[in-house]
Amino acid sequence: MHGPYLLFLGDITEPSAAKTGAGLREWRSELCIGQLRLPGCKVDLGLPDLSLEQAVAAGARTLVVGIVNVGGFIAETWIPTLKSALEAGLDLAAGLHHRLADVPVLSETASRSGRVLYDVRQPTQAFRPGTGEKRSGLRLLTVGTDCVVGKKYTALSLERALRYRRVKADFRATGQTGILISGRGVAVDAVIADFISGAAEWLSPANEPDHWDIIEGQGCLHHPAYAGVTLGLIHGSQPDALVLCHEPIRTHLLGLQYPTPSLGEAIEANLAAARLTNPRVRMVGISINTSRMTASEAGAVAERIGAETGLPCCDPLRHGVDRIVDYMMALTW
Amino acid sequence: MHGPYLLFLGDITEPSAAKTGAGLREWRSELCIGQLRLPGCKVDLGLPDLSLEQAVAAGARTLVVGIVNVGGFIAETWIPTLKSALEAGLDLAAGLHHRLADVPVLSETASRSGRVLYDVRQPTQAFRPGTGEKRSGLRLLTVGTDCVVGKKYTALSLERALRYRRVKADFRATGQTGILISGRGVAVDAVIADFISGAAEWLSPANEPDHWDIIEGQGCLHHPAYAGVTLGLIHGSQPDALVLCHEPIRTHLLGLQYPTPSLGEAIEANLAAARLTNPRVRMVGISINTSRMTASEAGAVAERIGAETGLPCCDPLRHGVDRIVDYMMALTW
Repeated sequence: MHGPYLLFLGDITEPSAAKTGAGLREWRSELCIGQLRLPGCKVDLGLPDLSLEQAVAAGARTLVVGIVNVGGFIAETWIPTLKSALEAGLDLAAGLHHRLADVPVLSETASRSGRVLYDVRQPTQAFRPGTGEKRSGLRLLTVGTDCVVGKKYTALSLERALRYRRVKADFRATGQTGILISGRGVAVDAVIADFISGAAEWLSPANEPDHWDIIEGQGCLHHPAYAGVTLGLIHGSQPDALVLCHEPIRTHLLGLQYPTPSLGEAIEANLAAARLTNPRVRMVGISINTSRMTASEAGAVAERIGAETGLPCCDPLRHGVDRIVDYMMALTW
Repeated sequence: MHGPYLLFLGDITEPSAAKTGAGLREWRSELCIGQLRLPGCKVDLGLPDLSLEQAVAAGARTLVVGIVNVGGFIAETWIPTLKSALEAGLDLAAGLHHRLADVPVLSETASRSGRVLYDVRQPTQAFRPGTGEKRSGLRLLTVGTDCVVGKKYTALSLERALRYRRVKADFRATGQTGILISGRGVAVDAVIADFISGAAEWLSPANEPDHWDIIEGQGCLHHPAYAGVTLGLIHGSQPDALVLCHEPIRTHLLGLQYPTPSLGEAIEANLAAARLTNPRVRMVGISINTSRMTASEAGAVAERIGAETGLPCCDPLRHGVDRIVDYMMALTW
């Protein structure tokens, strides 16, 4: 997939619907040269608004659908623009459940114009069931007390902080936004259920003994819809270290009547699950999402959780992740 | 899918490879009028050996591939016979990973001759993520200390025993053999990972308050390859009752270096997982597989496990499941 990217935001009205675009803007800003918005779009990623022609003139190579919607569909209203993008010479990339390649007008236009459609949520290889066999190298997996709580952001922050300290570390993407950010990975929730842990094993292969794979977590062990994906990802990742991601003021799982687990419950359940394939797993930090709190509230809650759990606690966005990295680096692995 | 069936055993040499055929023979013997074996086949289900012509003359409507193999492939050596079966007027059914419909000569022959290909392992509908919402009716799920330990057999035995007592009960199949036996269900390990629990919710919809769905379990919470499927199935099934299936002399998971969990560990882990979507879940019995033990050993181990766990324990094949049904029926639900 070639940059630079033009980020397509369609006609979305909620910032949360631009999750993929915002992730690219945050973590690959050097590749994002503009945004393309349809009439009615109320979201702004702070990038220049470019037409297709302007973007191509500025060097853009790929139009990336920056949208996450319920059902993961490609809206009818987007298709004329997506088709025009192909005709203007851009490749298309998306991470939705529905595939660009399954829209006849897009697959026809792409093949006629020699352009490429990247459906990053679709596995491009066949997986096998997991083997549970131990692999060399070190692995950290982010887990959470819910979905949409900061698992990807935390993992990317840890990769950056570790690399800054000259520790060999690679972010391993398990969802569409992470794949678009890092240019590789596997959307574990899109693989056949039998192969979840096998896909996770494939994602973080054997490596040098002092190399860290920083694996993006998915779902939550306490979530009635997604816990199976989470458990398979934990087992296949064989993590040496876990970081638990948590929004302190969230009382219920997003959109559900289910309460969020307590930190103690979540720590114990995730460690217990991980011990099956790596008995030496340790929890090395709590990453909090304090986006709906003030700075002083955030500081106080980080301190309180740190004292309660005996683990470093920080909001990667406000505080960075140095506390967690300091703690990790002081341990023997 | 129409009976009667002719069971196709190909050129297999191990009885375990005839798992699907043996399941049909055991549970739908009234529909199985014969077996078709290729030269070199060393397995015998005890059915008359019929040619395609003899089977058609005897009323057969469908040739069922009774084979389970590693990788779930359709062997080249079977294809001439499968093609001839279509030409002789039979439909084809299989529950392998690879689809009959993906073999060009079979799909062409089927469409030319007006015959149907049933790939029962392929979901025929789109699923949604689970909602976790409570449904009416009662549900029992079989779980296990490993794969291939008796979860399907136990569930079918419970359905039969409950119906014999005039309790409303329906077996709900979650794997290929169960689907072929009951003529419906969903192979949960073949759905997209995001939809495991949603598929399980679909499988056992709301029902009368005193109706039991007896759901066939899959995998094992302590299995490094398949635990994700198991957990999603548990959450989506929202079981009121669990029955734990166990082979007492098995020390390691089949084909792996992982020890089998103790009964206590397995009981606790499965109840803890099930409590997320049904806090009132109870373990109502231990179903043991004593196929590699003598009758007296089997009786002794059932007694010992019963005493240790305080739960009814029996081998469905040797002892039936009345002890478990008695225990269930004495509880208030």
